[in-house]
Amino acid sequence: MMIKAGIIGATGYTGVELFRLLVKHPEVEVAWATSESYSGRMFSNVYPHLNAVSDLVLKSLPEVQQDRADVVFCCLPHRTAMSVLPSFLEKQVKVVDLSADFRMATAESYTRWYGVKHSCPHLLTEAVYGLPEFNRNLISKASLVANPGCYPTSVILPLAPFLQKGLIQETDIIIDSKSGVSGAGRKLSLRTQFVEINENTVPYDVGRLHRHTGEIEEQLSSLANRQCRVLFAPHIVPMDRGILSTIYVRLREDISQEQALEVIKNRYKDEPFIRLLPDRLPETRFVQGTNWCDIAVSRVDGADRLVIISAIDNLMKGASGQAVQNMNIMFGFKETEGLQ
Amino acid sequence: MMIKAGIIGATGYTGVELFRLLVKHPEVEVAWATSESYSGRMFSNVYPHLNAVSDLVLKSLPEVQQDRADVVFCCLPHRTAMSVLPSFLEKQVKVVDLSADFRMATAESYTRWYGVKHSCPHLLTEAVYGLPEFNRNLISKASLVANPGCYPTSVILPLAPFLQKGLIQETDIIIDSKSGVSGAGRKLSLRTQFVEINENTVPYDVGRLHRHTGEIEEQLSSLANRQCRVLFAPHIVPMDRGILSTIYVRLREDISQEQALEVIKNRYKDEPFIRLLPDRLPETRFVQGTNWCDIAVSRVDGADRLVIISAIDNLMKGASGQAVQNMNIMFGFKETEGLQ
Amino acid sequence: MMIKAGIIGATGYTGVELFRLLVKHPEVEVAWATSESYSGRMFSNVYPHLNAVSDLVLKSLPEVQQDRADVVFCCLPHRTAMSVLPSFLEKQVKVVDLSADFRMATAESYTRWYGVKHSCPHLLTEAVYGLPEFNRNLISKASLVANPGCYPTSVILPLAPFLQKGLIQETDIIIDSKSGVSGAGRKLSLRTQFVEINENTVPYDVGRLHRHTGEIEEQLSSLANRQCRVLFAPHIVPMDRGILSTIYVRLREDISQEQALEVIKNRYKDEPFIRLLPDRLPETRFVQGTNWCDIAVSRVDGADRLVIISAIDNLMKGASGQAVQNMNIMFGFKETEGLQ
Amino acid sequence: MMIKAGIIGATGYTGVELFRLLVKHPEVEVAWATSESYSGRMFSNVYPHLNAVSDLVLKSLPEVQQDRADVVFCCLPHRTAMSVLPSFLEKQVKVVDLSADFRMATAESYTRWYGVKHSCPHLLTEAVYGLPEFNRNLISKASLVANPGCYPTSVILPLAPFLQKGLIQETDIIIDSKSGVSGAGRKLSLRTQFVEINENTVPYDVGRLHRHTGEIEEQLSSLANRQCRVLFAPHIVPMDRGILSTIYVRLREDISQEQALEVIKNRYKDEPFIRLLPDRLPETRFVQGTNWCDIAVSRVDGADRLVIISAIDNLMKGASGQAVQNMNIMFGFKETEGLQ
Repeated sequence: MMIKAGIIGATGYTGVELFRLLVKHPEVEVAWATSESYSGRMFSNVYPHLNAVSDLVLKSLPEVQQDRADVVFCCLPHRTAMSVLPSFLEKQVKVVDLSADFRMATAESYTRWYGVKHSCPHLLTEAVYGLPEFNRNLISKASLVANPGCYPTSVILPLAPFLQKGLIQETDIIIDSKSGVSGAGRKLSLRTQFVEINENTVPYDVGRLHRHTGEIEEQLSSLANRQCRVLFAPHIVPMDRGILSTIYVRLREDISQEQALEVIKNRYKDEPFIRLLPDRLPETRFVQGTNWCDIAVSRVDGADRLVIISAIDNLMKGASGQAVQNMNIMFGFKETEGLQ
Repeated sequence: MMIKAGIIGATGYTGVELFRLLVKHPEVEVAWATSESYSGRMFSNVYPHLNAVSDLVLKSLPEVQQDRADVVFCCLPHRTAMSVLPSFLEKQVKVVDLSADFRMATAESYTRWYGVKHSCPHLLTEAVYGLPEFNRNLISKASLVANPGCYPTSVILPLAPFLQKGLIQETDIIIDSKSGVSGAGRKLSLRTQFVEINENTVPYDVGRLHRHTGEIEEQLSSLANRQCRVLFAPHIVPMDRGILSTIYVRLREDISQEQALEVIKNRYKDEPFIRLLPDRLPETRFVQGTNWCDIAVSRVDGADRLVIISAIDNLMKGASGQAVQNMNIMFGFKETEGLQ
Repeated sequence: MMIKAGIIGATGYTGVELFRLLVKHPEVEVAWATSESYSGRMFSNVYPHLNAVSDLVLKSLPEVQQDRADVVFCCLPHRTAMSVLPSFLEKQVKVVDLSADFRMATAESYTRWYGVKHSCPHLLTEAVYGLPEFNRNLISKASLVANPGCYPTSVILPLAPFLQKGLIQETDIIIDSKSGVSGAGRKLSLRTQFVEINENTVPYDVGRLHRHTGEIEEQLSSLANRQCRVLFAPHIVPMDRGILSTIYVRLREDISQEQALEVIKNRYKDEPFIRLLPDRLPETRFVQGTNWCDIAVSRVDGADRLVIISAIDNLMKGASGQAVQNMNIMFGFKETEGLQ
Repeated sequence: MMIKAGIIGATGYTGVELFRLLVKHPEVEVAWATSESYSGRMFSNVYPHLNAVSDLVLKSLPEVQQDRADVVFCCLPHRTAMSVLPSFLEKQVKVVDLSADFRMATAESYTRWYGVKHSCPHLLTEAVYGLPEFNRNLISKASLVANPGCYPTSVILPLAPFLQKGLIQETDIIIDSKSGVSGAGRKLSLRTQFVEINENTVPYDVGRLHRHTGEIEEQLSSLANRQCRVLFAPHIVPMDRGILSTIYVRLREDISQEQALEVIKNRYKDEPFIRLLPDRLPETRFVQGTNWCDIAVSRVDGADRLVIISAIDNLMKGASGQAVQNMNIMFGFKETEGLQ
């Protein structure tokens, strides 16, 4: 019997990607989807590629309060999600939250990075950070999964194995990320108008300014069991989807290219969505539309440095694909179901 | 009276950009242009945007040996330029070489990075590295100017002032560059086919593998007067033109954001083509089609690190624009002539 | 039990798209795939997105002659396919040919449009034109299916219902098509280099010069049962995939917008891959990655003209998706299997 | 002595393009520029590529009423321009209006196509339609020039010579135009967000719905001296700039390809900005950043049809370049000044 899923905030880019995945998922029925801007209209009216695929009518949030759902995916902006989700959790609905509202460990760090007081700090402890490669067990028992940010996913997966083995300096980590434009969401913005970003490469929030810095450092520190510190420089490049993160680290020990590859290979050999490229560097095109995280390492000649490069599709492993992976784990489905 | 210029290898992207600049230059007449693939055809036949702009007929290299020229621009690939240019120098023709053949300081380093023996090593000492902001005097007296590479230009200009003042560690320099596709030239290649690079971000030659590493290190070391070492990671992003270099350095002294800005401002205050963006980070779009090098700095909070970001148009300040700037200096023209 | 499929010429864009579809198809096992340029290498080595998805090793054509296959898909260029396919047909292997070699009705018309003599004219009569919406029955019994061209698919589907009902002038048909760059194939070409086609719109073969003119006219004439004549103007626009065809026709009778919509709706109401957009015009993005053909009509005010607009993904309904649809019909599978 | 120019609404795409042209124009000084959204800020703050190029501070419209100007360029949206321009005309300032407000011949046709009453209908008679190739004399004496729309420019220039000679049917004209995204202006819109239009081709207002239909028909009718009627189908393709118009006409007499070429060649042989491509079809890339209108014709074999293709840069010959050309004529400057 299929479970019933609800999607809150379904008309943003992560929401519609999630919908695309769930309608094909053999264990899931999308029971409802909400949109404040488009409620009352057919989903296919907002996204014409859904014509003849789905005749779902979008609802407003109040309308779905009585509708049954076994799992709810929340694609609302941060600050909004935390005011909406408690009512679902109280009804024993499992929740995968794609916003940032339950990703931070404490109310203090949430306030530091998101500038507002957290409205339900007790849920922060309950929430599980939804990175299956590290928290699979916790996810399987969780009621509330905080789905990781797109940049943090592209950074934590390649870095953590080296940090956990103590092979790299934990305070000399430089992350240069290049993201497609869909990462900025669907809200209107001059910065994401075609003529402004086409034929352009744009750095922003360089240093320790971007909110994902906090998320990355908290997770790496927790996994490494010591305080990690990163320098993070995100960039937007003119493509729809994809994140390529080029990460520069300093080695504590002199390991070879082969040994560095082994670190990744051993750590992730049973993981269904991590792929080590043996003889090429990752490119965002190789992972487009998939839930893969591609990783390569490059030992720098004559220096104590390693460059680690990862590529993900920001809307898949960086958001909706990973959300479905988390749901699969929460409900005991095959982890790759609906993701291949 | 106008000087006569010749362009060798005029049908590549730097060649045609040079032609575009020279035909509008008030002091220069393009006397001839060569192309091995298209000799005998009109330039406007190869590049239809030149229709009704120029009726120049492309020649082969042997055909122009007797043609007068006061200056020759060489847009041939490296390894080829060095076999062609001596004959022009012997005839007292001034040469601006856009290939890499005369950029390295010694025949040994040339062989190391370009894999072949240099055919006229004596000219390496004579050749002046054509970065006007540092070698203006030498350029004004030079017969042979080695026009800098596109990546090196985007790296040396923002870095050198800090190195010269001893403010940063000279062996802990990480350069993450993002280049448009025209940087790869016009020769057919699967990598630069539209479908392969559109909607893609591609790292390559990461570490110390790219040839420009040698050029960058030699120039920085010479300017800093001590051995510099860089980690260089070039990337291709899906746009025609532009290089954005994000450079991560470690400070030797604790300087503030304002002090870091002052370093650039003071060093370049009289420079016609260096622009410090006071309150924004550079974007490649801001310099598209111009000879500007935009620079910004970002002092990282709570770390001894500085991020320096530069943007140039790889075909302008990164190639043909800088070549014209060099010619202006060599012939005593106004340095900005034909470049605004 | 799954059928065994072979792919000839698997490393072009249609070949790899076909492979992507077939590996997920529940009734099909890809037994082998050939490539003249890459034989002996893993498919995932040529297309890194296949890493960990498939470990198939590419073979040369002679190597697969003894390998069993129930169906063979041929993705070779026209002129080559006809020399390769007879040997498979003789072994009772069913064939879907994605080249143009078996699309024309007669050897004469093949020679007229493709400039060479047909090497096995007897097979032209046997071959079925693989447009399921019109030839479903014939396809189900065919040994050799000629998969339609991408432009013809985007043109015949929207036009044929009007022609069959005699509602439009059959000799006053103007087709203005806009295609993504993948339509030109993966072979190296200056025209499809990123810098040449990005930021560009390019008309070519305007009038009656493009080979697909012949295919379109033959099929329309056969469906309409009278001689049709078209003016065809293909254009390339800077995107990977998709064809939008804007078709201008003259009405024989004065029908309304609603009546025009009804013509499409009635003709295709049971078709699984034709979609009438009720209140919007088609856009290529709506069909990207799918086997849909979207159609809209626009009755022009105060004129006897109708504009019919269609959108397909040139690699899906325009090539590999339609090839799988044909295979499904040939083997009695559900027609939409592997295509949703 | 230089004339003083003012720009009203300078921060849209046509405004900034105009500014780019005027700052390099040897006869013009930009005295002021207005922006309602950004008044009080430096122009270079809104468009960082103007840093170190201009230190102009944007003003609001009331602030410039007393500022002297010899010519004012109006880049406001239609409906707004007509309420602003009379006050300048009263002060004997010459005006080039880039909006649609003074392009129509009568107040009735303005109301029909723009849906509002015209606020100063007497100026419609006074205004000269600023297409120099046809109205040079009138422009030279005009106080108020209505600068043509981008689509109409790309259509009237290639069509008019054939209509004026009576060579083509004036009521069977089909125009299929493909425009870059900048044609939609800089205002925020979901349709022009990168992710919505990248990798997409979008038809809109097909038939006789687009406002430029009225402008095209009025001008063609006036030039041909008989009532012309067009079917107009605009499309947006994913590029910044450029319009390619493919125009399908029916011949009244059987003229050859050569004769058709002669019609264009003879009509425009003395025109500085019309270019006949002898052996290629126009592509938008050939005219990018220039004031050229490229034209080619293609006589269709075995039919009484001609296809006429034109390409312009929508921000240059389609807007700001043509505005400068008009100003040059109005003030007796060399017509090509500042445009090469």
